[in-house]
Amino acid sequence: MKICRFNDNRIGVVRDDGVHDVTAILDKFEAVRYPFPLGDQLIERLQELRPELESLADGAAPIDTASVNFLSPVANPTKIIGVPANYHAHREEAKNDPDFDAGRKRFAGSIEEQGLFLKANSALVGPSEGVAVRFPDKRTDHEAELGVIIGKRGSDIPIEEAFDYVAGYALAMDMVVRGGQDRSMRKSIDTYAVLGPWMITKDEVPEPEDLDFELRVNGEVRQKANTSMMIMKLAHQISWGSNYYTLVPGDIIMSGTCAGVSKVEDGDTIEFDFEGIGSMTVPVRAHS
Amino acid sequence: MKICRFNDNRIGVVRDDGVHDVTAILDKFEAVRYPFPLGDQLIERLQELRPELESLADGAAPIDTASVNFLSPVANPTKIIGVPANYHAHREEAKNDPDFDAGRKRFAGSIEEQGLFLKANSALVGPSEGVAVRFPDKRTDHEAELGVIIGKRGSDIPIEEAFDYVAGYALAMDMVVRGGQDRSMRKSIDTYAVLGPWMITKDEVPEPEDLDFELRVNGEVRQKANTSMMIMKLAHQISWGSNYYTLVPGDIIMSGTCAGVSKVEDGDTIEFDFEGIGSMTVPVRAHS
Repeated sequence: MKICRFNDNRIGVVRDDGVHDVTAILDKFEAVRYPFPLGDQLIERLQELRPELESLADGAAPIDTASVNFLSPVANPTKIIGVPANYHAHREEAKNDPDFDAGRKRFAGSIEEQGLFLKANSALVGPSEGVAVRFPDKRTDHEAELGVIIGKRGSDIPIEEAFDYVAGYALAMDMVVRGGQDRSMRKSIDTYAVLGPWMITKDEVPEPEDLDFELRVNGEVRQKANTSMMIMKLAHQISWGSNYYTLVPGDIIMSGTCAGVSKVEDGDTIEFDFEGIGSMTVPVRAHS
Repeated sequence: MKICRFNDNRIGVVRDDGVHDVTAILDKFEAVRYPFPLGDQLIERLQELRPELESLADGAAPIDTASVNFLSPVANPTKIIGVPANYHAHREEAKNDPDFDAGRKRFAGSIEEQGLFLKANSALVGPSEGVAVRFPDKRTDHEAELGVIIGKRGSDIPIEEAFDYVAGYALAMDMVVRGGQDRSMRKSIDTYAVLGPWMITKDEVPEPEDLDFELRVNGEVRQKANTSMMIMKLAHQISWGSNYYTLVPGDIIMSGTCAGVSKVEDGDTIEFDFEGIGSMTVPVRAHS
């Protein structure tokens, strides 16, 4: 199943014929008063609610996906986790690029030595919201990645059980301003974490580590790779992260980018396709 | 006013005679259904609700603070932001300490060059919850800091308006496992962000940059300094961060630590006093 948020916080099931509005599913959620629990409740309850979601979708007329504004399929993330330098060819380009600056020292170490990093939750947007470039004198680069969405709370997760904690997958853009500062600052600018256009549940992606993906800027191919080229595998990422922090439904892992990262600027259009998941178009504007 | 969360998510106003239960204030908050808004609603509405909070406190019998379990005064943080190496003497000790490893390279740069970092929201606890040490073969260090709690949403905040965005202050412990990995991983272990025992509103702290603080482990003084020794001032931290990400009510800035950081382990007791704010005791245990 492909599940999305769209327009004014509506919930949709995406099928070949378009988006089916299933917002009525929210009647299954109790209203709660401050303080709110950690995590994304819809992602957490997705398996339980699935028969009802399918039935609501059956009864709703399809809406053309081209007419829909897709928001992030995760509404209430607790953490956005990034994996640094997880494709060999990207590692090499980073080592040789002066704009990576102090980063060159970081890229010298293994992923285990570098550690996972965080992006701010306030940076999260869906494709329709676009990317607003800050610091136009510096390089704001696109980084095309497979986004892994956690569906079950877990800590100290064994590698062999890691996929039990996955709800599904989405296209992820780990936008970044280049420089020597801490990644968790340069990658946390508002709109610099793009997730979408929907989440596909894991049962429909039997081989997440064998998917082609391609990112184009203004029609020109910039990034093109296959998830089989990841250095640190998804199960390892999940298990390793959970040795530090409890993973919570709605946590997002951006699993690392391939070679071809490059600058975007005001007026650019990014198109991003992921085999077996979907495609999204993301407009780039200046921060105002 | 000093406001706290305690025991089973109760809200309290702290006065000289103890904690006054004002949980009835939550009747002023509408129950909302998924998805939840970003930020901490109680912190956001504190000024508006203050007369009612004082009146509820007047009508409630005081509870001895020693009998109360204090939780984090922020229940729903969006970001926990850290300032690296913000006291000269800590910078020097870090440069000369082999356990800081790759950190030594980082500490060579100015704060502006290093950048702010993030800690995971899932790491946040109050003092009564204590710190659970992971990776006991490595150093888990205490870092005593002034915690600044944001009260108003803002982006691109001018330095001279920065304090308009502050709700108040709390004692903050930016716990960390030493090593060369990304700070946002080593500082995001569950329980490694301690905030408490309450938040004091900014009107009662006229000079936040002239406060003595002291941290003891098992009765022995380890850290002792004054917030006037901060290299990057609070207004600058707030303004600079807001050039990257929107600050949201309930965001926490841990403003940097002074010299004297040292290892804690299972069975230790940390005591932490902050002039004009309060004191807290934090037990240390092993992760289980």
